[in-house]
Amino acid sequence: MIGDSNGAAAGRRPIGVFDSGVGGLTVLEALRERLPHEHLVYLGDTARLPYGTKSPASISRYACQAAMALQERGIKMLVVACNTASSVALDALGKRLAPLPVIGVVEPGAAAAVSARPGGTHLVLATEATVRLGAYFKAIGERDREARVHELACEMLVALAEEGWTDGPIAESIVARYLQPVRDSGVDPDCVILGCTHFPLLAKAIVAAVGAGVAIVDSAGTTAAVAAHRLAEAGLLNESNERGGLTLLATDGATRFARVGGRFLGQRLDACDIEIVDL
Amino acid sequence: MIGDSNGAAAGRRPIGVFDSGVGGLTVLEALRERLPHEHLVYLGDTARLPYGTKSPASISRYACQAAMALQERGIKMLVVACNTASSVALDALGKRLAPLPVIGVVEPGAAAAVSARPGGTHLVLATEATVRLGAYFKAIGERDREARVHELACEMLVALAEEGWTDGPIAESIVARYLQPVRDSGVDPDCVILGCTHFPLLAKAIVAAVGAGVAIVDSAGTTAAVAAHRLAEAGLLNESNERGGLTLLATDGATRFARVGGRFLGQRLDACDIEIVDL
Repeated sequence: MIGDSNGAAAGRRPIGVFDSGVGGLTVLEALRERLPHEHLVYLGDTARLPYGTKSPASISRYACQAAMALQERGIKMLVVACNTASSVALDALGKRLAPLPVIGVVEPGAAAAVSARPGGTHLVLATEATVRLGAYFKAIGERDREARVHELACEMLVALAEEGWTDGPIAESIVARYLQPVRDSGVDPDCVILGCTHFPLLAKAIVAAVGAGVAIVDSAGTTAAVAAHRLAEAGLLNESNERGGLTLLATDGATRFARVGGRFLGQRLDACDIEIVDL
Repeated sequence: MIGDSNGAAAGRRPIGVFDSGVGGLTVLEALRERLPHEHLVYLGDTARLPYGTKSPASISRYACQAAMALQERGIKMLVVACNTASSVALDALGKRLAPLPVIGVVEPGAAAAVSARPGGTHLVLATEATVRLGAYFKAIGERDREARVHELACEMLVALAEEGWTDGPIAESIVARYLQPVRDSGVDPDCVILGCTHFPLLAKAIVAAVGAGVAIVDSAGTTAAVAAHRLAEAGLLNESNERGGLTLLATDGATRFARVGGRFLGQRLDACDIEIVDL
């Protein structure tokens, strides 16, 4: 590091990405695409998933433990790639890690939706937990008073993504079945928000169901854009021209993480690529 | 209780039924049908599900905590209505609760399959965790050396059952897709074991996929039969002619438990029907 400015040294530190499981790998993948020179360290709290059924106090505690484990790895920014943790624990994490920037997935998704369809009719596809917390509803409402927001819990889409059955007639008929009551109630969305980190894998089936004129907002891509902007603003971009490194951590189940996670990352993973950590 | 013999008083004690979530309600329902006069107390450890991704030591600890909570309610028998806990913790629970009888779901299912198709080709439909533990494989092999056993992880069927999409074209096409590689590899089962407590809800779709000549072994029904037999043997049947009572306990999420569990029990449940307990 001799001769480096502090900024350049800080820039070489990794971005930490945290999720309750493998879903956040879609956000990691978006970060890799947007910021190919950044080092990334991903932590999936697979031993304690799903977060959606846990109490807010437990979720905050788990998220803070995960954030501290990532902080020990010298991260320069934390991306909370989990809708439940973003909804519940973002403020607590921001305080705990200050002055490190902390970014969730809900706010970037809501901002992108409002920008894509001002005064629009937004349909948020999410898990039961995210719908119950109403985080997108609040985040969009704060940005656009004219917007109408409908939230739809689609648990089967998580199972579909994890099983890797992401396109074809089964995926399309499941998406269509979830959308049927929305259509029946006369709601005609002009923007669909993929409010679960698993759902970008199903984008093709979702587009097939809602039609090509509807804006699809993928919180993975928009979160990566916000992360890039915040790093540039803080002078923390990695100035190297080499491809950034990737470290994958999980709290349990390396074999399953490798099998399912490989699908999310679009590359083959082996169990030995995953480091098991204890929080 | 004055004037009662000890046996009659003991008979009025409830049967405890334990599962990691709502799936075990299919076993509870089978017990209600088989033993309508028995009082039943069900505990779903919804705060810590799924057990399948946890280590054996954690599963045993959780199961023992749940069993002790049920023991405090004066149970006369414990039914472990969870394939993962049955595979991992049955011996530990038997020792902990002795002399109370403890029954799991794997052994009754395996015995029923061997009895239905001696020397047969068994296909076990289960979760990833149960397949990984190989419990049905071992339990059938110990009873029938001629038997061939194939185990198939079908995670999507759990999501289907919880969503209540138990019949119709989506359920049937998902079951058919899981079975396709089995057929392609030339395996032609003459017995299908529903090796997950969620799967009896999907029996119709499974029968449609495998054909009517194949024996379907439902561990819920066979476990209830074993429970009835063990109670009769021990002189612990409730001699009352009144319908037995039902107490539902969960460790988290009464609203979701009521909504999904009501589907499993075939009766409407409200959140206030579920008592939340802390283990």
